[in-house]
Amino acid sequence: MAASSGFERLTVVLVSPRNPLNIGAAARAMSNFGFSRLRVVNPYEVAFREARSAVGASSVLHRAEEYGSLSEAVADCTLVVGTTAARKRDLQHSLRSLQDGALLIRRRLQSSRVALLFGSEKRGLSNEDFSHCNWLMRIPTREEHGSMNLGQAVVVCLYEIARDAFPTQAKIGLEWGTPSSAKVAGKPRPATAGEVEAITQRLLEALTLSGYVKPRAAASTEEKIRRMVRRLAIPASDADAWMGILRQILWKLRSGAGSLTDSQ
Amino acid sequence: MAASSGFERLTVVLVSPRNPLNIGAAARAMSNFGFSRLRVVNPYEVAFREARSAVGASSVLHRAEEYGSLSEAVADCTLVVGTTAARKRDLQHSLRSLQDGALLIRRRLQSSRVALLFGSEKRGLSNEDFSHCNWLMRIPTREEHGSMNLGQAVVVCLYEIARDAFPTQAKIGLEWGTPSSAKVAGKPRPATAGEVEAITQRLLEALTLSGYVKPRAAASTEEKIRRMVRRLAIPASDADAWMGILRQILWKLRSGAGSLTDSQ
Repeated sequence: MAASSGFERLTVVLVSPRNPLNIGAAARAMSNFGFSRLRVVNPYEVAFREARSAVGASSVLHRAEEYGSLSEAVADCTLVVGTTAARKRDLQHSLRSLQDGALLIRRRLQSSRVALLFGSEKRGLSNEDFSHCNWLMRIPTREEHGSMNLGQAVVVCLYEIARDAFPTQAKIGLEWGTPSSAKVAGKPRPATAGEVEAITQRLLEALTLSGYVKPRAAASTEEKIRRMVRRLAIPASDADAWMGILRQILWKLRSGAGSLTDSQ
Repeated sequence: MAASSGFERLTVVLVSPRNPLNIGAAARAMSNFGFSRLRVVNPYEVAFREARSAVGASSVLHRAEEYGSLSEAVADCTLVVGTTAARKRDLQHSLRSLQDGALLIRRRLQSSRVALLFGSEKRGLSNEDFSHCNWLMRIPTREEHGSMNLGQAVVVCLYEIARDAFPTQAKIGLEWGTPSSAKVAGKPRPATAGEVEAITQRLLEALTLSGYVKPRAAASTEEKIRRMVRRLAIPASDADAWMGILRQILWKLRSGAGSLTDSQ
């Protein structure tokens, strides 16, 4: 993924988090997806200390800033977005879907700072917290089980914000600099009809040697087998290996059959 | 979100998970986004027990099934997808972006079961695990910090799979309640992973009898063959016929080999 697209302008704000594991998970998710500014408002002190001193704590966490009030934490941002899993209609704010909201956030990040707020594990964001927001964004969980783990809510929001910066399949080859191969691309190049027929012939030979193809019904069985082999969609890159496998089986069938005949 | 779109056909498989918090987080994420089938392969027993007995453990977790092997855990699925954060070029499998992969998974869920695999916290999925997969899906993390927390990897994948089932603001009225229909046309229903593995086992037996698989190199050859068979896309309607073919060849190889031994 290309650095930035303004990612450095996003500030993730955790309001009153209480669990060090969640703080650590949020920081790790930020690092995974290329965000670096973390602010924590009125954390449960022990939790924040523990999270910072945890083995493997990311540099995001080490550089996290602590604030005594939400208003100070978001002061340098031009857009403040609160997150919620609620479907309530009586919210005082515009409620956007995660997809729509993420799009607006990405646009704003091109030119100025955006704060993305997550509430505490127990209560989420308060009405007072919401009052600092320009609008709210809803994470689309099921109605029957809406409440998300804090670290997971963070990772899903960041993934959606970063999503369009990721190369999709068509672009992967380009980005890696390799024109490479059937492997990365969606579908592997199929074997040629000639290769498929060569494989079919070896298989038919093996089936004759092992008595599966009866001389009388040979023609129709042959057609059936031929169609079956075509339905396999053998990749070009595997054609040689399949030929090798069939040759070995044929070799063994012949040597085995030979000795059978000898012993009769 | 409307129930289904085939969500009940997705099986999340955690291979050798060691941390009860991660197992719990995976189950919770499933419940948040409307998925219910969780299977656990060779978990660290204490972890699985702890996760199940945790306060607030979801019903997903209570109904989770434990398996002794990956092949059993995916046997009833027609598509098996492994997850990885790796960008490695030497992977033996097709590697799809999360967006493209999720689209294919959604399509397959319309008609049959899909398994989505996550490896252990420490090592991810092994090459042996990968050999059971039809293809792999990469979670698009930053190159400098690719490794994700297990619970977070699960939630991001499930979010992307469920993403288009969520109504965005504009569509809310329209989409809900209308049957979506996107029927899968044309392509034959693929064989289940159980059928594919049964075919693989017969083929491996034939290759051992014919000397293609050397005892010393058996494990890596086995993985190679397993991957080759998965790349074939065997239709469900042909599975029995292929089994019959292999059984016949095996029968002949055994009787031939038997008499060879006799004559020695």
